[in-house]
Amino acid sequence: VSQFEKRTTELKKLVNQQLAGMLTKKLPITLYDPMRYVLQGGGKRLRPLLVLLACEAVGGKVESCLPAALAVEFLHNFTLIHDDVMDQDDIRRGRLTVHKKWDVSIAILSGDGLVALSYRVLLSKSHPRIAEIGTLFSNTLLEICEGQALDKEFETRKEVAVNEYFVMIQKKTAALMALCAQIGGILGNGTDAEIEALRSFGFHLGVAFQLQDDLLDIVADEKLLGKTWGSDIMRRKKTFLLIHALQQGDATTKSQLQAILQKEVIAQSQVEEVKKLFQVAGTIEATQQHINRHFDLARQYLHRLPSSQGRQFLDRFLDSLVKRQY
Amino acid sequence: VSQFEKRTTELKKLVNQQLAGMLTKKLPITLYDPMRYVLQGGGKRLRPLLVLLACEAVGGKVESCLPAALAVEFLHNFTLIHDDVMDQDDIRRGRLTVHKKWDVSIAILSGDGLVALSYRVLLSKSHPRIAEIGTLFSNTLLEICEGQALDKEFETRKEVAVNEYFVMIQKKTAALMALCAQIGGILGNGTDAEIEALRSFGFHLGVAFQLQDDLLDIVADEKLLGKTWGSDIMRRKKTFLLIHALQQGDATTKSQLQAILQKEVIAQSQVEEVKKLFQVAGTIEATQQHINRHFDLARQYLHRLPSSQGRQFLDRFLDSLVKRQY
Repeated sequence: VSQFEKRTTELKKLVNQQLAGMLTKKLPITLYDPMRYVLQGGGKRLRPLLVLLACEAVGGKVESCLPAALAVEFLHNFTLIHDDVMDQDDIRRGRLTVHKKWDVSIAILSGDGLVALSYRVLLSKSHPRIAEIGTLFSNTLLEICEGQALDKEFETRKEVAVNEYFVMIQKKTAALMALCAQIGGILGNGTDAEIEALRSFGFHLGVAFQLQDDLLDIVADEKLLGKTWGSDIMRRKKTFLLIHALQQGDATTKSQLQAILQKEVIAQSQVEEVKKLFQVAGTIEATQQHINRHFDLARQYLHRLPSSQGRQFLDRFLDSLVKRQY
Repeated sequence: VSQFEKRTTELKKLVNQQLAGMLTKKLPITLYDPMRYVLQGGGKRLRPLLVLLACEAVGGKVESCLPAALAVEFLHNFTLIHDDVMDQDDIRRGRLTVHKKWDVSIAILSGDGLVALSYRVLLSKSHPRIAEIGTLFSNTLLEICEGQALDKEFETRKEVAVNEYFVMIQKKTAALMALCAQIGGILGNGTDAEIEALRSFGFHLGVAFQLQDDLLDIVADEKLLGKTWGSDIMRRKKTFLLIHALQQGDATTKSQLQAILQKEVIAQSQVEEVKKLFQVAGTIEATQQHINRHFDLARQYLHRLPSSQGRQFLDRFLDSLVKRQY
């Protein structure tokens, strides 16, 4: 076991203990049971780890940023619950989603409750820059809402440009990863340059991460994925892959894709077909290239920080994301 | 026109201008259009007024608490959007609700966006006690979620005790009014005793306000009400009125009420019947007595503040709530 694995296992354990300790309240049961259910759903805790490792990478202590680390995990889980309602997803991490296990009202409310918990823990520790951190946090929450709104708008639009797609994922996914690394840097008392570098590191990590998500939807093992294979296609999500294939594919590829997209209902049997069309259009490689480019950019920003064990851990963190299979 | 009316008209105009100025962003249209729609729906702006008047009542300046005043209005409007989804209400303030005019996803998302705006403006102004204010705000948001969860749980429960009802409305309604008066007091640099008195003032105001809401659902003019008359009854809401009549009514009244509640669907034609049963059980007067008692308590707490024009304005504010017809 490497030192990195040892450290992240420790930190993940700490995060899980703290999260559990903050969810001991039982009543009203329809509010707190779904919150616990989602938080105990086996998340990877990537975002809190990012906060904690970023803090350590600038020489800060874990204690100073632990509340912020918990806050981003609460916020992330809030987005999962509400997004699953909007996307009508039935399965998440191999289990029923909240609105399926309970109902839509309970999903809305337990998501809202997680936002409250998120801010409560974020603001629980006094800090000279706490108002700034709260503002960054709120701007990010608003960006996440904007990103999700665009994602939904794109579903019913015929054409979405590549740059529109990137704006959407920057808001929906990268903004939060950028925030994690940034507030880790702020709470670790990093210099302005270090904080800026960490923010850009987190941002490109987030862009690469979302592109991977798009790719994994069609290339991953369904068992590992914990959700329905090809669900993006069935929902007509304007992923990078679909936009690329519709733009770069040859005439036959395009018309075959359009024919599938025009169907009343897209069945899972058509996902294999779409996957083949993506391969013909060179979409899989093109996506992988974009992923690599953003991971490289993330690495470059990270290396603006002076070399240290903390920075090395973030290097390993990045490596672990590069290799992820789900 | 009294000085009080002049001042509240000024303050309301200020709040409306500021709210409009914060909602100039156009895109994504499915996020910002519903937010604007709800904010421009002709709300009474009671909560921001309460913040501003409480601040002035302890000698503070409006500028110091204006961001907090806007924050509570955003938060209140968020609760309206999400509650309307959960309660499947079609009409609010005489207009279609967001999920009816658009859809459930857009209602969820624009509600979430209002929470983000709410915290953003709350934390926009630096203040020595900003972390504390943010924590109070978050605790209140969580309480509101708890109150709404209880309200929904009670709908499907056969019996709800009066004290359970009071816990529910304290969380759902009174907590936010208490917060408004409290943070007005904090930002106005009131003494601890003044802030505590203002908090209790707001709290009892909120309890009375919710009891009035329950009562108005059945005694108000539907046109003034801006929503369907008797909707609480049709939704089997465990209002104070229903709980009282089921407990205090005679055997005939109780069994007639139970018969209506056991129907598959409660039609509006049955509301008149229920109203009569409430009258027979003495429910209308009992509710009015509770309302009066909480308004009196609010007044007593208010009068712990030294006499001033600011305090007098809060007295008039209370009077205006006592008299409200919708």
